[in-house]
Amino acid sequence: MRCFLPLIALLFSSSTMAATAPSSAPSPAEIVDAAPATAWRDVAPERLLIMKLADGDRVVIELAPEFAPVHVANVVRLARSHQWDGGAITRVQDNYVVQWRVHDEASPLPEGFMAHPPAEYDRPLKGLDYTPLPYPDPYAAESGIASGWLVGREGAQIWPAQCYGVVGVGRDMPPDTGDGRELYVVNGEAPRQLDRNLAVVGRVLEGMEHLSALPRGTGKLGFHTDPRQDVPIASMTLAADLPAALRPAMQVMRTDSQSFHDYLAARAARRDPFFVHPTGGVSLCNMPVPSREKKTQHD
Amino acid sequence: MRCFLPLIALLFSSSTMAATAPSSAPSPAEIVDAAPATAWRDVAPERLLIMKLADGDRVVIELAPEFAPVHVANVVRLARSHQWDGGAITRVQDNYVVQWRVHDEASPLPEGFMAHPPAEYDRPLKGLDYTPLPYPDPYAAESGIASGWLVGREGAQIWPAQCYGVVGVGRDMPPDTGDGRELYVVNGEAPRQLDRNLAVVGRVLEGMEHLSALPRGTGKLGFHTDPRQDVPIASMTLAADLPAALRPAMQVMRTDSQSFHDYLAARAARRDPFFVHPTGGVSLCNMPVPSREKKTQHD
Repeated sequence: MRCFLPLIALLFSSSTMAATAPSSAPSPAEIVDAAPATAWRDVAPERLLIMKLADGDRVVIELAPEFAPVHVANVVRLARSHQWDGGAITRVQDNYVVQWRVHDEASPLPEGFMAHPPAEYDRPLKGLDYTPLPYPDPYAAESGIASGWLVGREGAQIWPAQCYGVVGVGRDMPPDTGDGRELYVVNGEAPRQLDRNLAVVGRVLEGMEHLSALPRGTGKLGFHTDPRQDVPIASMTLAADLPAALRPAMQVMRTDSQSFHDYLAARAARRDPFFVHPTGGVSLCNMPVPSREKKTQHD
Repeated sequence: MRCFLPLIALLFSSSTMAATAPSSAPSPAEIVDAAPATAWRDVAPERLLIMKLADGDRVVIELAPEFAPVHVANVVRLARSHQWDGGAITRVQDNYVVQWRVHDEASPLPEGFMAHPPAEYDRPLKGLDYTPLPYPDPYAAESGIASGWLVGREGAQIWPAQCYGVVGVGRDMPPDTGDGRELYVVNGEAPRQLDRNLAVVGRVLEGMEHLSALPRGTGKLGFHTDPRQDVPIASMTLAADLPAALRPAMQVMRTDSQSFHDYLAARAARRDPFFVHPTGGVSLCNMPVPSREKKTQHD
């Protein structure tokens, strides 16, 4: 059999960090691989939510209290009162979202829970580091990166873009009906029509494949038609509530680092030898901020 | 349990055609549902490739000879000489591509097969219907729709965009090394850095969920690490080579129809009552051309 290496030079994943042959114009993956320790920031355990599926698979979510503090606080309160334990994924719609809920929506709400959070869909730019991006965005006057998050901007307001892996809060028709007991994650082309219409509480840093590869629901909008199709959730736990040894040591690339700057430039103008027509631009959701689990000396 | 209807009004899939409550501002799904028969075109059986997985799942692909005639002819020749029978999906990379190959790359090539097709990555605009889109595109001077396909444009050249569900030809480093015996389909955020860098031979019209929900490969770039993880392919067959009764009666919305015009406008400026902040724009790959299997009187 012929040794075929299709696409080898152009494949990149922020999680797998593909190693390709070094060249004079490093690929985005090579830049990430070569980034010094100072280009990475540790994610505080208070910002990490760990979803365990009943089959043992783990999904690690970085929370976004900068953007939806009340919704995030609700989700954390639900975690601390174990309302996610025995919850379930009830919907898997192809190229759109995977959605899950708490164990029992009739359970008493935890103390401090806000039953009607405000519509935390955007926020002032002020107070966050912000770097605009030079590429046009069909969904916003401008797009950029704010304190490590991919955002759209209009005037003095910014909002997190609904990119692949972003975790948001399902709601009913009135904007204040999403309280955090139903969450979704984007599993396809970014549905950015949702920008500023649904609260974003975080993004998946690890384990997305345990959600994205689930069989698609066969009901309307990808809902399961039989509760036996639901995917049971064992728990959602804040890393800070775990013993230190069990906390995942997640790191996200600092978006104010030279490595990130180089990574963005390389994603926009591919200079790897594979590319015969570099595009010269990149869409906001096609430049995920790299993350990794920090290596320890025991690894 | 509370009857929670999160996202109900904003969910749309070109294949499921979600029925939502009628409103004065119809949603994209409502527009598609209400489209008259004249808004749809039949896809000729010479343009339909049917992939059968060994477990019986069916994937229907519309071929794109307008864009890559030599590559498409190669793929059809491989189908007619049964070289896909016993092929396999060997790679599933999250948020990137699913890739498959013929049964045996050492098999004699079929008569007329072009071992080194030209780099059919773009083509002249001339000869195709073309409608530009009014939204900015980070990857191209302009984007639009050409004879039913989502395309980028630069000067007199256009090319199909590498959107979710688009089927392309894997290749090695030199541009003429992709002969069609390894194909891929995009399974995540559109990797439009591949635009004009890999030949597009079609797009999935039906059955994408049989490819997108496959377990992710655990090897580098999502390749399987053990042939036992490969997903066997029973066959790829041109619909024209099947008895008429077995051909899927696929239809694609005419992009020159009023329904499509209305659908695009509604996707760009959501007026469904759910949306509190309509974005006013839409990205090229987030407005898939609707398709369906034609209903017969027996349905």
